[in-house]
Amino acid sequence: MSLGEFDFIERLLRPLSEGFPGALGLRDDAALIDVPSDRQLVVAKDALVSSIHFLPDDPADLVASKLLRVNLSDLAAMGAEPLAYLMVVARPADLPDPWLEDFVRGLERDQKAFGLHLVGGDTVSTSGPLVLALTVLGLVPRGEALRRDGARPGELVCVSGTVGDAALGLRILRGLAAPDELALPLIERYRTPQPRVALGRALRGLASSAIDVSDGLIADLGHILRASGVGARIEAAAVPLSAPARALPGARQSALCGGDDYELLFTLPAEREPVLAALSAQLELPLTVIGRTRAEPGLDVVDERGAPVRPARPGWRHF
Amino acid sequence: MSLGEFDFIERLLRPLSEGFPGALGLRDDAALIDVPSDRQLVVAKDALVSSIHFLPDDPADLVASKLLRVNLSDLAAMGAEPLAYLMVVARPADLPDPWLEDFVRGLERDQKAFGLHLVGGDTVSTSGPLVLALTVLGLVPRGEALRRDGARPGELVCVSGTVGDAALGLRILRGLAAPDELALPLIERYRTPQPRVALGRALRGLASSAIDVSDGLIADLGHILRASGVGARIEAAAVPLSAPARALPGARQSALCGGDDYELLFTLPAEREPVLAALSAQLELPLTVIGRTRAEPGLDVVDERGAPVRPARPGWRHF
Repeated sequence: MSLGEFDFIERLLRPLSEGFPGALGLRDDAALIDVPSDRQLVVAKDALVSSIHFLPDDPADLVASKLLRVNLSDLAAMGAEPLAYLMVVARPADLPDPWLEDFVRGLERDQKAFGLHLVGGDTVSTSGPLVLALTVLGLVPRGEALRRDGARPGELVCVSGTVGDAALGLRILRGLAAPDELALPLIERYRTPQPRVALGRALRGLASSAIDVSDGLIADLGHILRASGVGARIEAAAVPLSAPARALPGARQSALCGGDDYELLFTLPAEREPVLAALSAQLELPLTVIGRTRAEPGLDVVDERGAPVRPARPGWRHF
Repeated sequence: MSLGEFDFIERLLRPLSEGFPGALGLRDDAALIDVPSDRQLVVAKDALVSSIHFLPDDPADLVASKLLRVNLSDLAAMGAEPLAYLMVVARPADLPDPWLEDFVRGLERDQKAFGLHLVGGDTVSTSGPLVLALTVLGLVPRGEALRRDGARPGELVCVSGTVGDAALGLRILRGLAAPDELALPLIERYRTPQPRVALGRALRGLASSAIDVSDGLIADLGHILRASGVGARIEAAAVPLSAPARALPGARQSALCGGDDYELLFTLPAEREPVLAALSAQLELPLTVIGRTRAEPGLDVVDERGAPVRPARPGWRHF
């Protein structure tokens, strides 16, 4: 028997709104959000479609995590603190109730971990695959949001964590052979992104620009460079790879072009370089300088000898 | 040749963000929204799925209108002023480019009419039908939002405009025979809802509760009654019908149970009844008293002789 819209909302979704009075128990036409006068609201919206952004047999709670986290990553890239979210579930008739229950369990776990609440949304049916759309709301001190257009020539180009892991994880799920001890951590990186909310917050007032790595390192750096009107040169060998990635073929290519890592890519005035080590220690997160911005437009990726590296493709396209 | 994600955003969607600096030209990870300190943010999210909420051969600009307007109706029911919106388009591969161009033209026309801007969203592909999800942001003076839970016993139950038209329009689109002069205005009501934004704004500080009629008059009044902990008795004969509706079979039933009219249903302390006529004249919109709230729970619908009217079904379910 299929869970009707009423039961889905009343029994599964409403508890996710508890503790946020402005959600009005999901029982009103809209939610009411208080924004303190020294804050700006930050709002982003990302959607996931079954078979495109996740695999139909991915565990439901991990799909929930991914949905929430790719949106939280947008807040992180703006330096914002999570506040609330709204969600649309366009549900195929054959989606089993236990899937929805596991999905909501994943939302519950992650909204506690990241400190936000469900405040509204819509549930509809579709004859096609499951479509999940989420709008996330966050707060940032007025005028302090990290943006893509603030990079200046001569700054350091930095990236958090390691990149290329998620793309390798997806390749393994699609058939690339790898022993379990390499495969599992890479699949985990693909399925459960770690939005860098604490790093985004720490970079306010420090970084001159920031973006999350969702399309791929080169593509996302391109977004910063175009928005800021500068160019850059990055060293392929400096791009941080995880140990499991290094053991597999195509790791460097994945690091440059693979999407879905959700690390933060940011630019930092060179004189602030010393804060990187302190910040890295405090957040227990590697922060690596991979290149420099310059006045001349364009992006050069070079190897150890300074020779150009030609990536196979500029990034992911999901449309 | 299909419009890629980049071109869809750059060429068609970006112009919809012009004039709203916080949209950051749709080029950043998120939008920045300023909320004045004497205002609360009001946020709602509704989705439309092809073949369920609109017909695949409905004109694309009218689908855009409907998407924006059903969301604006949620703002109207809270007494909020439109500010901005975010949109997810989950697009099937066979959706032609001219459809998207017409769709964006519809958005452009309506966002000018209602005074809001596109500030973000996501475009994805799907193997299923077109799914459109919209999040609308509005502002309301702090503490003055109209809610569903404020009705008290002995108040007037009022509705704007006429109801039942949209459900009759849908029945005509699905084959109910009707001459053009009746069919066209009813189909128009189904396809192009008129969100009662000005009425919602005027009802702040007057109405004790409000909701928009999307599920059907009885179902939506039920939402107010349950949220407020009161009951009501309404007179079926008092429910306002349009001239085209009155000429068709089943108009009364459509008025009680048909959804998608997007009129406002509200409760008003009885001593404020005189404002209805003034407000109606000012807004050029009928405002009709259809019954009274009472302490005893439940909803009675009665005919001219006081005998109970039994509606066929309690409202629309789309899930």
